[in-house]
Amino acid sequence: MPADASGQPCAIRDVLDWIGDQWSLLVLATLAPGVKRFSQLEREIGDVSKQMLSKTLRRLEQDGFVAREVHAEVPPRVEYRLTPLGMSFLEPMRGLIRWAEANQAAIAAARRVAT
Amino acid sequence: MPADASGQPCAIRDVLDWIGDQWSLLVLATLAPGVKRFSQLEREIGDVSKQMLSKTLRRLEQDGFVAREVHAEVPPRVEYRLTPLGMSFLEPMRGLIRWAEANQAAIAAARRVAT
Repeated sequence: MPADASGQPCAIRDVLDWIGDQWSLLVLATLAPGVKRFSQLEREIGDVSKQMLSKTLRRLEQDGFVAREVHAEVPPRVEYRLTPLGMSFLEPMRGLIRWAEANQAAIAAARRVAT
Repeated sequence: MPADASGQPCAIRDVLDWIGDQWSLLVLATLAPGVKRFSQLEREIGDVSKQMLSKTLRRLEQDGFVAREVHAEVPPRVEYRLTPLGMSFLEPMRGLIRWAEANQAAIAAARRVAT
């Protein structure tokens, strides 16, 4: 297993576990502005199923990126927000998104040449 | 579709096309230090099949991240290197890897609590 760009062999594969999952990134990006309820997340992400959104939220909760709060009301109000760990991930994620925006055209051009 | 962390709706999904593929990242990280031949890449990445490595290199070439040079020798010598686009991707990728290294323990701890 080669030393990756930073000399650490397995850090890449660990990162890919989450980042490879587009729903995780979309949930994190949607929670970036602040606390949201399930229905808000569903509406804002748009083309995600209830099952996929629940599964993604549960996994992000287990990995420590998202916190879930149940307010004792009738019916109970459930809210999701980013934890400090989740918030800390936004910066490298934004770096990736900025790179993607800046280079989308170059990649599209390369793909046209290749086809 | 929500505005993502940077306000762009589809940049995330485009980024995920490549980054979700662990072999792409491993090839890019392995090429970061400089020009490599197929057999070097195969040896350094370790657990990649010839087919997967060929397929990944072809896709990275099509997307403009990697350049392939054939030297007219007998037998022909084939070398791969990062293009400027490929090199420019290393920085956000390293940001991600640095984040992963710094937070791996926190994630592992969260997972233990969750299980």
